[in-house]
Amino acid sequence: MSPIATHSTDGDASHGKELRKEPHVPAKTSSAETEKLAINTIRCLSADLCQQYKGGHPGTVMGAAAIATALWKYSMRYNPANPDWVNRDRFVLSAGHACLLQYILLHLSGYSTWTLDQIKQYHAPTMDGIAAGHPEIEFPGVELTTGLLGQGIANAVGLAIANKNVAATYNKDGYPIIDNKVWCFTGDGCLQEGIGQEAISMAGHWGLDNMILVYDNNSVTVDGKIDICFTDDTSAKLRSMGWHVLEVDDGSNDLSAIVEAFEQAKAFTGKPVFINIKTVIGIGSANQGSGKVHGAALGEDDVARVKTALGFDPKEKFVVPEKVYEYFSETKTRGAKDEDDWNDLYKRYEQAYPEESADLNRRLAGQLAEGWESNLPPKESLPSDPKATRQTSGIMLRSIIPEDKSFLVGSADLCESTFVNWNGMVEFQNPKSGYGDYSGRQVRYGIREHAMVGVANGVAAWHKGAIVPIMSSYFIFWLYAAPSLRMAALMKLRFIAIATHDSIGVGEDGPTHQPVAFPLFLRALPNFNYVRPADAEEVAGAWILALKDDDRPSLFSLTRQPVPLLSGTDRNKVQFGAYIVHGDEKETPDITLVATGSEVSRAIDTAKILKDYKVRVVSMPHMGRFDQQSVEYRRSTIPSNKSLVVAIEPYCSFGWAKYAHAGAHMTGFGHSAPYSTLFEHFGFGPQNLASKITAWAETRKGSNGWDLPGVGEFEELLLSKGH
Amino acid sequence: MSPIATHSTDGDASHGKELRKEPHVPAKTSSAETEKLAINTIRCLSADLCQQYKGGHPGTVMGAAAIATALWKYSMRYNPANPDWVNRDRFVLSAGHACLLQYILLHLSGYSTWTLDQIKQYHAPTMDGIAAGHPEIEFPGVELTTGLLGQGIANAVGLAIANKNVAATYNKDGYPIIDNKVWCFTGDGCLQEGIGQEAISMAGHWGLDNMILVYDNNSVTVDGKIDICFTDDTSAKLRSMGWHVLEVDDGSNDLSAIVEAFEQAKAFTGKPVFINIKTVIGIGSANQGSGKVHGAALGEDDVARVKTALGFDPKEKFVVPEKVYEYFSETKTRGAKDEDDWNDLYKRYEQAYPEESADLNRRLAGQLAEGWESNLPPKESLPSDPKATRQTSGIMLRSIIPEDKSFLVGSADLCESTFVNWNGMVEFQNPKSGYGDYSGRQVRYGIREHAMVGVANGVAAWHKGAIVPIMSSYFIFWLYAAPSLRMAALMKLRFIAIATHDSIGVGEDGPTHQPVAFPLFLRALPNFNYVRPADAEEVAGAWILALKDDDRPSLFSLTRQPVPLLSGTDRNKVQFGAYIVHGDEKETPDITLVATGSEVSRAIDTAKILKDYKVRVVSMPHMGRFDQQSVEYRRSTIPSNKSLVVAIEPYCSFGWAKYAHAGAHMTGFGHSAPYSTLFEHFGFGPQNLASKITAWAETRKGSNGWDLPGVGEFEELLLSKGH
Repeated sequence: MSPIATHSTDGDASHGKELRKEPHVPAKTSSAETEKLAINTIRCLSADLCQQYKGGHPGTVMGAAAIATALWKYSMRYNPANPDWVNRDRFVLSAGHACLLQYILLHLSGYSTWTLDQIKQYHAPTMDGIAAGHPEIEFPGVELTTGLLGQGIANAVGLAIANKNVAATYNKDGYPIIDNKVWCFTGDGCLQEGIGQEAISMAGHWGLDNMILVYDNNSVTVDGKIDICFTDDTSAKLRSMGWHVLEVDDGSNDLSAIVEAFEQAKAFTGKPVFINIKTVIGIGSANQGSGKVHGAALGEDDVARVKTALGFDPKEKFVVPEKVYEYFSETKTRGAKDEDDWNDLYKRYEQAYPEESADLNRRLAGQLAEGWESNLPPKESLPSDPKATRQTSGIMLRSIIPEDKSFLVGSADLCESTFVNWNGMVEFQNPKSGYGDYSGRQVRYGIREHAMVGVANGVAAWHKGAIVPIMSSYFIFWLYAAPSLRMAALMKLRFIAIATHDSIGVGEDGPTHQPVAFPLFLRALPNFNYVRPADAEEVAGAWILALKDDDRPSLFSLTRQPVPLLSGTDRNKVQFGAYIVHGDEKETPDITLVATGSEVSRAIDTAKILKDYKVRVVSMPHMGRFDQQSVEYRRSTIPSNKSLVVAIEPYCSFGWAKYAHAGAHMTGFGHSAPYSTLFEHFGFGPQNLASKITAWAETRKGSNGWDLPGVGEFEELLLSKGH
Repeated sequence: MSPIATHSTDGDASHGKELRKEPHVPAKTSSAETEKLAINTIRCLSADLCQQYKGGHPGTVMGAAAIATALWKYSMRYNPANPDWVNRDRFVLSAGHACLLQYILLHLSGYSTWTLDQIKQYHAPTMDGIAAGHPEIEFPGVELTTGLLGQGIANAVGLAIANKNVAATYNKDGYPIIDNKVWCFTGDGCLQEGIGQEAISMAGHWGLDNMILVYDNNSVTVDGKIDICFTDDTSAKLRSMGWHVLEVDDGSNDLSAIVEAFEQAKAFTGKPVFINIKTVIGIGSANQGSGKVHGAALGEDDVARVKTALGFDPKEKFVVPEKVYEYFSETKTRGAKDEDDWNDLYKRYEQAYPEESADLNRRLAGQLAEGWESNLPPKESLPSDPKATRQTSGIMLRSIIPEDKSFLVGSADLCESTFVNWNGMVEFQNPKSGYGDYSGRQVRYGIREHAMVGVANGVAAWHKGAIVPIMSSYFIFWLYAAPSLRMAALMKLRFIAIATHDSIGVGEDGPTHQPVAFPLFLRALPNFNYVRPADAEEVAGAWILALKDDDRPSLFSLTRQPVPLLSGTDRNKVQFGAYIVHGDEKETPDITLVATGSEVSRAIDTAKILKDYKVRVVSMPHMGRFDQQSVEYRRSTIPSNKSLVVAIEPYCSFGWAKYAHAGAHMTGFGHSAPYSTLFEHFGFGPQNLASKITAWAETRKGSNGWDLPGVGEFEELLLSKGH
């Protein structure tokens, strides 16, 4: 290895001198020539792969080939034969468009799924490839699906806090069961994104010294030189957010300097480490160092030129010299040994700490602590006076969270008013802070909703089923986190999002804080549980539904204002999406009112006023679940072919015409006033609802029963007077 | 005034010594005693106002009363008699929950609308108050509706670039028509939010020395001490992002130091200025300095205690001593003189520069340059070969943007592939950068989508109608900006968002980049134009619709992949939301296919295969506009009471049951593969569509024509095989 060209750029580098014992500290095993050959092989492969389909992102792969070599060959701890080994280092490619970098290294380091043939399917017209345009969680060696810029940094912070939390909970003297590192590879894009900055600020605050953020600083972006839009002093910025910073000057070539920096980073304690590595994007290409090599193939001529310059035959494609496979081959033996050693350690741990290991084993098997469902208070012991559903959700949380370490709870600075706190809770904090320690399970996410969910995705993906993240904020602020909510649905990760202060019930805070359309997005989103419970009993049902649904994130839409406990609600029916809560179940009603959340009780009050009709009220806490029921169930619950159906919900009506002939909805934004004033003003008072429904029903009287409106005739019964 | 207690904490304070001539540099006009009385009046008023309705946010108002006094009494330039004076300083309360601070100062400084009686309506059960829970744009003296944390910082950056751009375009030697400042008041929340950090990074990059960010650093948040979640060195962080930093130690009391810092900030050139002012939240209250005074009234006893301590009678409420009105009274005369002087200057400018002033006057009157609509290429000169709608949108942009300075265009690092560039464009840049200058109209927003839209909202609000922001990014990244898109709709601001790469047509980038549900949110959002044009002709229609709609933001959903120019499309019919593009207009069809965007041509191809039926195809570029048409128009366009109606769109079906009996939609997320592979795989090939529709239609044949499905019977014709 060449002399060290790594330098720490802050005053606290001395911390790093206390090297921890790492079983896999790299030794010089290969000649400089072989190293160069390996790096050049990665470059030529990426040039070939992009050229093959005339698309993709070759530049970053070429520029960062040495970084990738350092990671997989020297610095990361993993076993290619078992990508699920729980104490493996985690690698997150936040710059997901550079996926080939990861795919090629997964191949070279011996992950059997990642054959060269598979990688050659990158951008191919096939539906069953694994070399997707951005890394996807389903495939071995990929921790999370990234690709949307900035998400990966937050995901990595999530993996890091998961490691810290599990380690602090289960590790014992002499038994470092969990002591792995989280590596995150980022480009400029992720560092500019708000979510990236939020997550970086969190990691610094928590002092996550198990996280290493590797910055491929190539100074180039899609539109050209990065300084056309971004002139932050990134190293200084990271230091100001509590990170230790290392810099490498020639990251496209100086493998030794990179490895040295990685080893320093691994040994450093007390802060997360940011490694600012200067590279040349598309190095070797005619357009190296420019935006032209970012998101397009190089072109036949340039690919040939690159290969010739790097000593490869321009006529041959997808070449991996045997020497390169040999160079990487030790990763397999080293990885197997690392895992074997760990297995031995774990066996001894199980003997020494049977209780702790049993608990951990339960969690690693994806099980919640037994009895959680029966720990929820039964309906008869729920508060009989009106309570906000945010409050009754707190009752459920407190009946299951404190005893089961599977739950990592947190809030975006609204812990108390979202009722996610409990007696005796310990905060997840840097032990030096004085506020808690890493075994704590109340996470102070700060006013960073987007990163909160990005982090939770990392937590949920740490070892699927082992940790259930619970997060909380006011409803409208979940819109800040929408991209990460969507990613959770796409990745099939389970979490519970506690979204309090829903609808215009927010009241005085006004239209900015009153969601009227955002909840509809969550209904439209595939693989996402949007649940709006009517009362405490349905809140219990929401918790049951969410915790039994391993493959899906859930968001509970909860009220700020009190709602009564309704006699007709049933926690066990929430799973059907909709069910009858008022009126005769057998007899066909004249009018069916379908409502959700706080409006179910309004609908029942309205039904009681509509004395001239047989009125049924259906609570619909989960639209998507209702769609999954049999036709018979749907028809018998909401008989839209026999009765008039009116939906009542203080959101916009979008989506409701599927179930109802008419609706009482918002037709614009809300207003700043106390909630009771608002519900009256916008027409949701039962007296007004009853008279609007009566007037409309009169117009639908036919000669022989109702003249039921058809598709295309949905009627808005309320004309909002909002913004 | 007391000795200066302000200190610059970076090396470039010397720049600040070159004071510019400001007509309103404050002079000491009052005794320290009167100043204290004014500050204490604000504190007592806020305590009373919150106590009256037992809610609200008294703490920040009390802690920052001296800051507010410094702003309105000394440092800001404005004329209370004319809140719309174009060269006024702009003030943005990013910490919108502290609205009382602004309301009280608007009252004290003489804005006639802001009577004490109006302010007493804060949190009152009334629908016609102006003292909303967060400041709202409709009311005098409020520049934008803030309240969602972080938005205000981005809005302020928008106001600042608007000022810079207009100044660089129209100011002449000796005629500083626009030379005002933008003041933004922030707490900890906005600084933690990603959008705040993105906007700060932009402002530093652009060197916006007309922007002053006033940080009310009270170290307290809802959940308690800020250091439970946030330990950034904020001053160092802002410096790393190109800001000049000033610090004030005792910001709750030391009015002189605050004013001195404000004057230094106004005089500083080359960078935006961040003023880190330490304050004590809820100062004087029993719970001062704690989270308890953040979002709750103090309680009767404490209010009385505070008033007594501050020398007020605890029995009297809402007291403003005459001396305090006197103290603020000069703001009116000074403001009137400032505007008079400016009016004189502007009259002379009109004489000296008739052309420039005419152009500016046109814009200030909210007019676009004449002839823009006829400058759009007519249908016969549009490209006849298939082109992506992102590309044909570029044709429209280039036919109207270059000549009209009303347009401030920009991109989140995707200028070329979203086709928002043009020949001869100048970048909006810090002149020192070498890349452009402030008169430039191509804004490099960087990879900061959320702040891009927050900034655009500020641009659009600078002087309504004078600037039309155009922004661009890939479709899915607009989800990052969703909170700001929503705020634009709420504020009735006009902009155009160019969202390219819509639907699964994105192709290889995979499911992370393929929106399947997000577009539906934009349809559900009130006061928002979501337009998905079918071809180049409808793209022209989208531009016309958006530019004629002064009170609404628009987003164009555009393809990455080529689509043919269709014979039936008509730019003038886009405004109706939906219209017939294929099939007989008079005769009732057997089957009506309703499609949007790139699927309109697929629908026509499908119709041609369905030879056994009379098939009509309807293009529906704008669902919301269609809903606004007459019943007759809607019925005659989509005869869902006579023909089977099938919707075709590669998004989830949510919302479509309102118009159609069945739909060909996505039922899950997309996949990584070339777009043509994906459309076939997910069932959107015309052959497959035709056979699915035929098979379904067979099941709906009744004895006497169609057995039309009713409400509740919507059928999904495609079963997606996605994630």
